[in-house]
Amino acid sequence: MTTDPHAPQHNWYTEFFSAEGSSFGLEINSMLHEEQSQYQKIQVFDTQHFGKLLVLDDCIMLTERDHFIYHEMMSHAPLLSHPNPADVVIIGGGDCGVLYETLKHPQVQHVIQIEIDPRVTEVSQQYFPELCSQNHDPRATLKFIDGIDWLNRQSPASFDLIIVDSTDPVGPAKGLFTEAFFSACFSTLKPNGMLVQQSESPLYHSQSIMKDMKHDMLKCGFSNVIHRLFAQPVYPSGWWSSTSGIKPNTDGEVLDHDLKRTKNFATRYYNEGIHSASMVLPEFMRS
Amino acid sequence: MTTDPHAPQHNWYTEFFSAEGSSFGLEINSMLHEEQSQYQKIQVFDTQHFGKLLVLDDCIMLTERDHFIYHEMMSHAPLLSHPNPADVVIIGGGDCGVLYETLKHPQVQHVIQIEIDPRVTEVSQQYFPELCSQNHDPRATLKFIDGIDWLNRQSPASFDLIIVDSTDPVGPAKGLFTEAFFSACFSTLKPNGMLVQQSESPLYHSQSIMKDMKHDMLKCGFSNVIHRLFAQPVYPSGWWSSTSGIKPNTDGEVLDHDLKRTKNFATRYYNEGIHSASMVLPEFMRS
Repeated sequence: MTTDPHAPQHNWYTEFFSAEGSSFGLEINSMLHEEQSQYQKIQVFDTQHFGKLLVLDDCIMLTERDHFIYHEMMSHAPLLSHPNPADVVIIGGGDCGVLYETLKHPQVQHVIQIEIDPRVTEVSQQYFPELCSQNHDPRATLKFIDGIDWLNRQSPASFDLIIVDSTDPVGPAKGLFTEAFFSACFSTLKPNGMLVQQSESPLYHSQSIMKDMKHDMLKCGFSNVIHRLFAQPVYPSGWWSSTSGIKPNTDGEVLDHDLKRTKNFATRYYNEGIHSASMVLPEFMRS
Repeated sequence: MTTDPHAPQHNWYTEFFSAEGSSFGLEINSMLHEEQSQYQKIQVFDTQHFGKLLVLDDCIMLTERDHFIYHEMMSHAPLLSHPNPADVVIIGGGDCGVLYETLKHPQVQHVIQIEIDPRVTEVSQQYFPELCSQNHDPRATLKFIDGIDWLNRQSPASFDLIIVDSTDPVGPAKGLFTEAFFSACFSTLKPNGMLVQQSESPLYHSQSIMKDMKHDMLKCGFSNVIHRLFAQPVYPSGWWSSTSGIKPNTDGEVLDHDLKRTKNFATRYYNEGIHSASMVLPEFMRS
């Protein structure tokens, strides 16, 4: 049964998500790039129906066809929840899709992106140039160093928003899913500051990674910790999430995650209705 | 690249969705059942992490792990949008999951399920007995005949709600995605009656099947035609939809799809928040 008689004759790139016994595949025309960087295997494929595909360590990262959902939800939802997101940090995000969306906000005065692997960004510049087209915006600074080390060296109360756009909690990204990391984020955020982090699949991880992240963020001082859910067809289960918490202000008051202002640019997934609807949890996640 | 070196050594059942160049697979322990009925190939597998799996003509229909999302959204959302859904019809629905959820509503006095293939229901009774556990409810009538023929023989204004729980618009279900079928539904619905039908993937079909269904339902006299979106991890793209329209009453007034009353039973996906949130469309579907 491994070889399906109905399988087309073209080649397929298949990600096997062994922990949950599921797989997702894309029909490909050719492999455009493959290398082993200092940190991970980086591959780019040309697919039949999803445009170009970026894969890190055998995990699908993005396709040209559907990356807009993840990138818009990781950026516009938190940015428009914050009253004035002037100083933004992106941890990870080497493909620069979140950075691209973040720079659409005129309120953003400075974005520092801390990606450990310069090859991810260089490969993205070559194969996904539209995502990297704003990298030279004078408000953007790209550093290729360890995100946790860098964060631990920052002054307290420096940032309004930290966006963690990481790979899965194994390998180089493992340390980003720890209480110590959330605590460092909390310290470097200004009052009313916000942390938002990708938090895997609601079907697979609502009772593990997502629950642990919420618990640990609360433990580190964050309030109003919420999940946002959205479709992401090429990720395991086709269903993905972010988790975000807010640092109380000096009076102990905490902002909410509601829309603070409207956007004046075009999007493909995110809109005002989605801003609210994405926070609604299905019954199995409310108990 | 067809044979991935990281593929586990167990067997996999993989559905190839060739039109969009994507595939979804589940790790399986064994095949429990395989037959060619008068209408289609019916297979049941025991999977490693998704419980039992039902496949019709090489298309994944349901798994024990995640069928609750689809079945709850196809039943509770429309049933709780109708002020008094006494007479309900299910077209298709042979696995009886929608019927099971529908019978939870005390307002429902009679459900007629019209499934063309008796073997789908018999196989479900054997391998998914929990879905069929209410089939002998005195309010339920199961007929195994052609849904379109049957509907064309019904008296006008007979039903409050028609739920179309069909396979994809190819093969036996093709006629369920036509203007002629929507017109027959319109005729047999009472004033304020509602039609709800599964309408495939928002990523793959928003500009084709979903758009055509909405257009054709409106053309047949339905008003307030809406889409509801929800996760369905084992379906193509992991993201699915229903489309539903409402028959105006005799004064030409049209009800909305808002919640008409609250449920008094447990669910796993559907709740009041989801009722509203599922109607919110992403930006690419609003234009």
